[in-house]
Amino acid sequence: MVSLLTDYGLEDGFVGALHGVLRSRAPGVDIVDITHGIRFRDIRAGSLALQRAAPYLAAGAAVAVVDPGVGTDRRAVAVATSHVTFIGPDNGLLVPAVETLGGAVLALELEDRGYWLSAPGPTFAGRDVFAPAAARLASGGDILSLGPPIDTGSLVQLPGPFVAKREDGSLEAEVTWVDRYGNVQLAAGPDDLGPTRPALTVMGAGGRWEARLVKTFADLGAGELGVLVDSYGSLALCLNGTSAARQLGLAEAERVVLAP
Amino acid sequence: MVSLLTDYGLEDGFVGALHGVLRSRAPGVDIVDITHGIRFRDIRAGSLALQRAAPYLAAGAAVAVVDPGVGTDRRAVAVATSHVTFIGPDNGLLVPAVETLGGAVLALELEDRGYWLSAPGPTFAGRDVFAPAAARLASGGDILSLGPPIDTGSLVQLPGPFVAKREDGSLEAEVTWVDRYGNVQLAAGPDDLGPTRPALTVMGAGGRWEARLVKTFADLGAGELGVLVDSYGSLALCLNGTSAARQLGLAEAERVVLAP
Amino acid sequence: MVSLLTDYGLEDGFVGALHGVLRSRAPGVDIVDITHGIRFRDIRAGSLALQRAAPYLAAGAAVAVVDPGVGTDRRAVAVATSHVTFIGPDNGLLVPAVETLGGAVLALELEDRGYWLSAPGPTFAGRDVFAPAAARLASGGDILSLGPPIDTGSLVQLPGPFVAKREDGSLEAEVTWVDRYGNVQLAAGPDDLGPTRPALTVMGAGGRWEARLVKTFADLGAGELGVLVDSYGSLALCLNGTSAARQLGLAEAERVVLAP
Repeated sequence: MVSLLTDYGLEDGFVGALHGVLRSRAPGVDIVDITHGIRFRDIRAGSLALQRAAPYLAAGAAVAVVDPGVGTDRRAVAVATSHVTFIGPDNGLLVPAVETLGGAVLALELEDRGYWLSAPGPTFAGRDVFAPAAARLASGGDILSLGPPIDTGSLVQLPGPFVAKREDGSLEAEVTWVDRYGNVQLAAGPDDLGPTRPALTVMGAGGRWEARLVKTFADLGAGELGVLVDSYGSLALCLNGTSAARQLGLAEAERVVLAP
Repeated sequence: MVSLLTDYGLEDGFVGALHGVLRSRAPGVDIVDITHGIRFRDIRAGSLALQRAAPYLAAGAAVAVVDPGVGTDRRAVAVATSHVTFIGPDNGLLVPAVETLGGAVLALELEDRGYWLSAPGPTFAGRDVFAPAAARLASGGDILSLGPPIDTGSLVQLPGPFVAKREDGSLEAEVTWVDRYGNVQLAAGPDDLGPTRPALTVMGAGGRWEARLVKTFADLGAGELGVLVDSYGSLALCLNGTSAARQLGLAEAERVVLAP
Repeated sequence: MVSLLTDYGLEDGFVGALHGVLRSRAPGVDIVDITHGIRFRDIRAGSLALQRAAPYLAAGAAVAVVDPGVGTDRRAVAVATSHVTFIGPDNGLLVPAVETLGGAVLALELEDRGYWLSAPGPTFAGRDVFAPAAARLASGGDILSLGPPIDTGSLVQLPGPFVAKREDGSLEAEVTWVDRYGNVQLAAGPDDLGPTRPALTVMGAGGRWEARLVKTFADLGAGELGVLVDSYGSLALCLNGTSAARQLGLAEAERVVLAP
């Protein structure tokens, strides 16, 4: 079982090449495409998407590739948790998912011990390094055969998304994700909000809006802004049937304030 | 064997989450992605796409999700036909496909009998309710364990697409589908048209055009409008190598008239 | 094992139909989607994408469909190489990949010997002809049961992409591929370039630019144009983190000159 998350898109044959390598080297392997729609080079977005996916990953290997440093001396690593082994570049992409699954029990640097594909250029590590490493695990190979162990504490970590309770009782939080429906996920959960009236004020760079705490999209009237606990346990701003992100002019990595 | 059709798109990890749940709970299951490109909340388009796919579905379960009422008291259902069991919201999405496969032999309401995923919010029934139900069937579970049977006649039905023979002998039909090539599928087959000369007039809101009955795209000259029997047995308007929908200014759910 | 490459896109259910047919007729078959993002009717782009994918294909059948002549008397063929059998229209799409895998050992014309799907119209050969042929191979059927052998030399061939060394020592080459990152792959490899200084001049219809030979994207400074050997062994023009194709105004099938 190998899960895949990349910024490759589906227009080119990059994802197909990963599948081809996996199925050639580990016949019968099952593959899940988490998504290949991560914005080009957006390590932060990739790490958050991988973290959201983590609790639903089938046991096995998970290859993640958002890798602007491909071909440089950035490390290629495998990081084992209790039931999923993450494989990818050591640039911060993997760590949030690793932590969501209880932390690393082992990390090692991928080293060419005969399992890498020989390639004319160094720019497609997904095909030439990461997929072969996953194929080796999927076909029963020992993780210790992939390369030398490294200190799990040495893995590159990115700063997490911002969230803070302010002195006036309001909550300031970063936008972690705008999904295709335009729902605006925040780096905060219902516990961060604390007890509150159902009516809230949302303040962003583009204005301020009244919002209502609801359970689901269909609880909202036309044009009414809602705050709900989304399917990942985070607070999210939403409208019923249209894009809250567009309506509010909000993008990923921006911040909003929720005031009671 | 589980087939999937949704309006989730592929940019986010929604589809990946379905796959992860299916492969975690039903190891070795085969999955077919019918499409995840249904327009957001377009139940009609989803129901027609599922109906077109129905004759080509592998035996097993088929999960379909276009679900604007998610989290409300709209029912979640499983509807068994002779060889495919459809799983999804009871909002009209499933019924046309069910009828194409010979009608329902059993329907039941999904009920949380321990197989749903516990979720922080109610907005992702695909992951938390429908995929687990399909996984239960795919791993050999009894359909009767999913919930209480309901009257198959109680399933929500949408009105079918419009088609009518007019007094002057012309045929009026709704556009059921515009595919990526711009072919315009109509809610009518060759029998609706009846015997006709190869030259037809097509009338829509945007104008009237001369067209010719042909077998395939390559029978058409540059800029020549054709009417053919498409690969689903429906009449379709087409041009050779370019979009008839754009040329004629036609969109799904609009109507056209074909006159002999 | 069946690999797929088409211009079907993922919005409609075309790819899902192929999967459904394959899984119905060859239960347990593994499927790799090479890509379905080939530009509509672009046989040249499809043939080059299939050729790039060829070395990484798992052994088995590979169905490729970019087929503007569908429904006409263009031949439908299967072409066996040492470990992959290509199936698709005889319009030039398959030949470059076949040659990359060492050439054809057998070719035959697909003929309806009971394994085609009966279809209301002739416009979906992928579902009705090619996928059933692949399913027959994948389920152990003899390739000779697909139709009569034909002369491998009779397969339609397209002219290959242009590349030439010019008298002044410069290299003129066609753009074979612009990937989603905007990297511009050329119909030339490092041997075509020959020994050169690391500084090059790139000339296209839109201007001339100084470029530098590098190993990988991250070797480039902001805005600096690079020439590297890409992961397929071809020369490619690139920028670090942005689109070289857009910056240089280059598109597929155009030509550029590299001068020492």
